[in-house]
Amino acid sequence: MPNPITPLSAAGNGLMHRRLFLKAGAGLVGGSALLTAQPAAATRAAWMKAPGRPMSGYGSPSEYEAGVERIGFGLSQPGTTGSGASRTPLEHLNGVITPSGLHFERHHSGIPDIDPDRFELMIHGLVERPLKFSMESLTRYPMVTRTQFLECSGNSRALLNQTAAPQGCGEIHGLISASEWTGVPLSILLDEAGVSADARWLVAEGGDAAMMSRSVPLAKAFDDALLALYQNGERLRPENGYPVRLFLPGYEGNMSVKWLRRIAVTAQPAMTRDETSKYTDLQPDGTARMFTFEMAVKSVITSPSPGLVMHEPGLYQISGIAWSGRGKIARVEVSADGGKSWAEAALDEPVLSKCLTRFRSAWRWDGGPSSLLSRAIDEAGEVQPTRAAYIENNGPSTNYHCNMIQAWQVASTGDVANVYG
Amino acid sequence: MPNPITPLSAAGNGLMHRRLFLKAGAGLVGGSALLTAQPAAATRAAWMKAPGRPMSGYGSPSEYEAGVERIGFGLSQPGTTGSGASRTPLEHLNGVITPSGLHFERHHSGIPDIDPDRFELMIHGLVERPLKFSMESLTRYPMVTRTQFLECSGNSRALLNQTAAPQGCGEIHGLISASEWTGVPLSILLDEAGVSADARWLVAEGGDAAMMSRSVPLAKAFDDALLALYQNGERLRPENGYPVRLFLPGYEGNMSVKWLRRIAVTAQPAMTRDETSKYTDLQPDGTARMFTFEMAVKSVITSPSPGLVMHEPGLYQISGIAWSGRGKIARVEVSADGGKSWAEAALDEPVLSKCLTRFRSAWRWDGGPSSLLSRAIDEAGEVQPTRAAYIENNGPSTNYHCNMIQAWQVASTGDVANVYG
Repeated sequence: MPNPITPLSAAGNGLMHRRLFLKAGAGLVGGSALLTAQPAAATRAAWMKAPGRPMSGYGSPSEYEAGVERIGFGLSQPGTTGSGASRTPLEHLNGVITPSGLHFERHHSGIPDIDPDRFELMIHGLVERPLKFSMESLTRYPMVTRTQFLECSGNSRALLNQTAAPQGCGEIHGLISASEWTGVPLSILLDEAGVSADARWLVAEGGDAAMMSRSVPLAKAFDDALLALYQNGERLRPENGYPVRLFLPGYEGNMSVKWLRRIAVTAQPAMTRDETSKYTDLQPDGTARMFTFEMAVKSVITSPSPGLVMHEPGLYQISGIAWSGRGKIARVEVSADGGKSWAEAALDEPVLSKCLTRFRSAWRWDGGPSSLLSRAIDEAGEVQPTRAAYIENNGPSTNYHCNMIQAWQVASTGDVANVYG
Repeated sequence: MPNPITPLSAAGNGLMHRRLFLKAGAGLVGGSALLTAQPAAATRAAWMKAPGRPMSGYGSPSEYEAGVERIGFGLSQPGTTGSGASRTPLEHLNGVITPSGLHFERHHSGIPDIDPDRFELMIHGLVERPLKFSMESLTRYPMVTRTQFLECSGNSRALLNQTAAPQGCGEIHGLISASEWTGVPLSILLDEAGVSADARWLVAEGGDAAMMSRSVPLAKAFDDALLALYQNGERLRPENGYPVRLFLPGYEGNMSVKWLRRIAVTAQPAMTRDETSKYTDLQPDGTARMFTFEMAVKSVITSPSPGLVMHEPGLYQISGIAWSGRGKIARVEVSADGGKSWAEAALDEPVLSKCLTRFRSAWRWDGGPSSLLSRAIDEAGEVQPTRAAYIENNGPSTNYHCNMIQAWQVASTGDVANVYG
């Protein structure tokens, strides 16, 4: 199929202008077939011949979607029980919200089943009035709702492997999810407790067997921290901290301590086991950088991506997600020629701060080998780096905050693979 | 407890100014208790003493939330199989998104289990090129994502009963839900088919045993109609039309035909069984009004509401949802004295068109009997009517499009009940 240069071309190898999404003319799209038989002659499928299933108390996906599961959920770390991670199958999703059943998991000692009637949260330390809260008392406080992402700091570290592994989008990048979180601004509770003048930090402690603990700057607590009680409209899921988690928008996921039981206000960071043995960034000179809280600007194309086969040349929609821990996504650019030329993608509205933003580009695939890349720029002006630039700046041994550009290679067979572009 | 008139009072009987949500001062909030024992002395619950449960492929709510289910899901209409409705338990939810497992259901012949590999959608009638689409071909088209509500036209009709029934928020109003919908704009497919100059309507037909069918103005199809493929990030749930439903933002729910199999472009409405035997509005003069597509401006307080007991006087957050089929919510007002005085509520951002908007007001309950009301105003200037005004304008026999103000009576015991305010 030819790859004509038309007024709608925006970059090389078939990338088209994003205004295509505002007004798509006839003939630009390609997946349909002419209807030749009369509709009346269409046979009725079995499901039209008898009444269907009854209603249910709590629904679940179609049995035909049973393969859409979290990735790696059967694995736990050697020598541990219930410690490990499962990933969101990004290549099967669309939009911004992650279904709660597919939100990535990262546990340090499995998922506790906490009785909300026995739950208690303490705020103490450098405060005038140490306080405790039951679930019933917490739900009386003012709440706010925000749709924001949560990303594990170890997401995408597979791209540091020396050679590109035959992995898919969710396998490599699935430690990111987005939810609508509703909860009580932490600032309200800290105000009620009365924070001392010399307080600068807090330590958040989880009520799981690992007592996962992290130090958080008090400035963040007073900025946009939530005690999250609801996720996507209903109470938090157990694997996301039921009944209460800390939620720190834009910060590395492990700091949003789940199953929250205690907040101690302090003058200094506590240097907990979890923030010294893990979650520091090993530098090329052998030292470790601490307290790199914000997740960097990043994006990835979810479709096409490995496992999704393209059966014929023609028009496709390239779609993916972009995010930044620093605020809103300003722009996403897409390349179909390995980075030689770039086209600006359309962004789904509304573009929210510290949230996933869905981007979309129209692409006329000519059937030849193509290297697909996306590059995000946030409102602070930060630009997602290439893999080479990332490694040059951070060394090859860092384990966290990998935000390099992902390249997917489309072969002329229509198969898609992870490559270092 | 006294009910002082302070600079933060916004209306009678304890309603406070919405700027409370921007900066809550110490002492304004009340659910906490002083922590007297040292935290170190706190006993560790059972769930902190052993590793928790492992990860899972697809998660589900906590066992402690098992009571949060769709309401009435066990009932079907007399003389039918699989026909009926189940309702969203609004009083247990917060934020805007309805979890897909709790989205309300309305089926005319149960839920078909459709094999997406055998699915086919036809567009024919007054078009130049009749087309058919497989699931694979549909997913190649440009998509958009929008978070919007879906409301059954029969929602809230319980408020037409002569006396106020002892029902709760979800029982009365739970035929409303909101989802993030992702799909292909119908306009793109109609453009490809080439609509004839004399076409004005289309007929959408479902692939269930009832072949639910509705006529839709072509102008709506070209405005903001979607063929929805994804709901809250994942493929549609079976009870919401898997694998493809029509989605008509702001229109009465039954027109967003589920399990969509056929779109016939026509010059006139088809006057189908479903739009003549049902979904018309009986007027006081005995005639029936047809084609009242848009859902009217409306709101309801979800907390406090029946079933949620208030245990002591003090500060509470009044919270609820507001929506309009005509666009955005401009303002929501709340009354704690049966409508004698009103305070403007705070609206959670972003306020989206044809979507639920969460509103919140701070209320200092003095422990006395109180009548709580909410009243929504949309960007078109439409104001939610009182029950008396609604009945005067529409007569007592209409079955659809009930949008009158709901009153909840808080007794001095803290119990909350449905009343005609």
